[in-house]
Amino acid sequence: MANSRSGDSVISRVIRVLEAFDRDRPTMTLSRLAARAELPLSTTHRLVEELMGYGLIQRTDSGELRIGLRMWEISARSLAAMGVREAALPFMDDVLAVVHQHTTLAVLDENAALYVERMSAPDSVLDAARITDRMPLNACSSGLVLLAHSSPEFQDSFLSGRLTKVTDETPTDPGLIRRHLAEIRQRGFVALPGIGVSEWLGVAVPVFGAERTVVAALNAIVPRDQAEVRLIVPALLTAAHGISRTLAPRPRRLPVEPG
Amino acid sequence: MANSRSGDSVISRVIRVLEAFDRDRPTMTLSRLAARAELPLSTTHRLVEELMGYGLIQRTDSGELRIGLRMWEISARSLAAMGVREAALPFMDDVLAVVHQHTTLAVLDENAALYVERMSAPDSVLDAARITDRMPLNACSSGLVLLAHSSPEFQDSFLSGRLTKVTDETPTDPGLIRRHLAEIRQRGFVALPGIGVSEWLGVAVPVFGAERTVVAALNAIVPRDQAEVRLIVPALLTAAHGISRTLAPRPRRLPVEPG
Repeated sequence: MANSRSGDSVISRVIRVLEAFDRDRPTMTLSRLAARAELPLSTTHRLVEELMGYGLIQRTDSGELRIGLRMWEISARSLAAMGVREAALPFMDDVLAVVHQHTTLAVLDENAALYVERMSAPDSVLDAARITDRMPLNACSSGLVLLAHSSPEFQDSFLSGRLTKVTDETPTDPGLIRRHLAEIRQRGFVALPGIGVSEWLGVAVPVFGAERTVVAALNAIVPRDQAEVRLIVPALLTAAHGISRTLAPRPRRLPVEPG
Repeated sequence: MANSRSGDSVISRVIRVLEAFDRDRPTMTLSRLAARAELPLSTTHRLVEELMGYGLIQRTDSGELRIGLRMWEISARSLAAMGVREAALPFMDDVLAVVHQHTTLAVLDENAALYVERMSAPDSVLDAARITDRMPLNACSSGLVLLAHSSPEFQDSFLSGRLTKVTDETPTDPGLIRRHLAEIRQRGFVALPGIGVSEWLGVAVPVFGAERTVVAALNAIVPRDQAEVRLIVPALLTAAHGISRTLAPRPRRLPVEPG
């Protein structure tokens, strides 16, 4: 039997082997793997042989090594329970690669959009929509998306209350907001400049969880005079789709409203 | 230092812990995990503690255990198949707009077609070909396409083994399967009703990567009595071409002005 000490050491070596593979180097020879994992060649060989037996490492057609599909299979099957914030991170990275400014993830929490995650480009500054910030639902793109996909009772209750004007362009007329909500459900996104911060434009799309419920809003924030909504919307929709897939890796229903 | 024997045993126990999580049970308590992995509670506790240190297992908000995001991250960022999957998504959306049922992406993995992506229309239900499901190569259109474009050695080896009959219509005669494979290579697609699920028809085409190798099969699944193969095939071929273009963009020549 392995004692705790040798067990630790085996697991840590396995991790080093697996983590030697990344986006820039998805396949490699055994000797390169040993070098990157900083392990003796013989140890690496033995670990790789056993990991290959379980499908965690595979050999490519050209004979190099790569992470096995079994590894993806185990994680993809069981990650349905994963929190939306964690699921969203890699996809938010993808969004940032397209928008080069800010991307946020917000959830509905007590009449507000609560920002649970944000990623920003190094050179882009925005003193709003920070992680743990809250915004009135009518004063940000994420809030409008979350409101659009909430129950009619909640919408009635929210719209009959006092609607905060954050900027001159924040919509506070219930009839106008209802038209925005209908458009969001129909088009799948919202893009309204200046409703939360005057000089910025927010674009947001819904993130669907299991059972077709909306669990979050995925958003991009860009300077309104540089906004290319036609590029931003497909990036957000693709990312939101990826997040949903990670949350519920099973047959999904497309966000299409009948009629 | 762990000897080979103890090392084997640690890795095999780690695999048993990780594989205890699945689609039906993505989260569980430590004692349930020990029972499912068929390991002593103390051993399981020790393994889980260490795996949690590496982020391969995480604790949910309610205190249960689940597979960690790190595991998904290692596999997703390094897998060539994930590149296909990401590239395929927008094109699968295009396919769905035409077929209105199901579209899947499958890769060859150890004598099986492994479904790595799927998109379904809102009103179409199919309890097969779910993401992470595996099907015998001879029992689905995607499998036949992948087999048709695999090496002659692999084909010989697969066809000389035991061929699973999933439905009455699953081809299990090696000679018949070889004729299907030749036809697939010649016509560029396959459309065989009922070979995987009796009431359904699968249509599949190859997705070429760099170097003209087939990296995946793109498929559509429709009720066999509503199948319009003449519409489905061009939709799939167009989408597969788009995926290939995304995977291996041809060098473009810029219009260079002399002088």
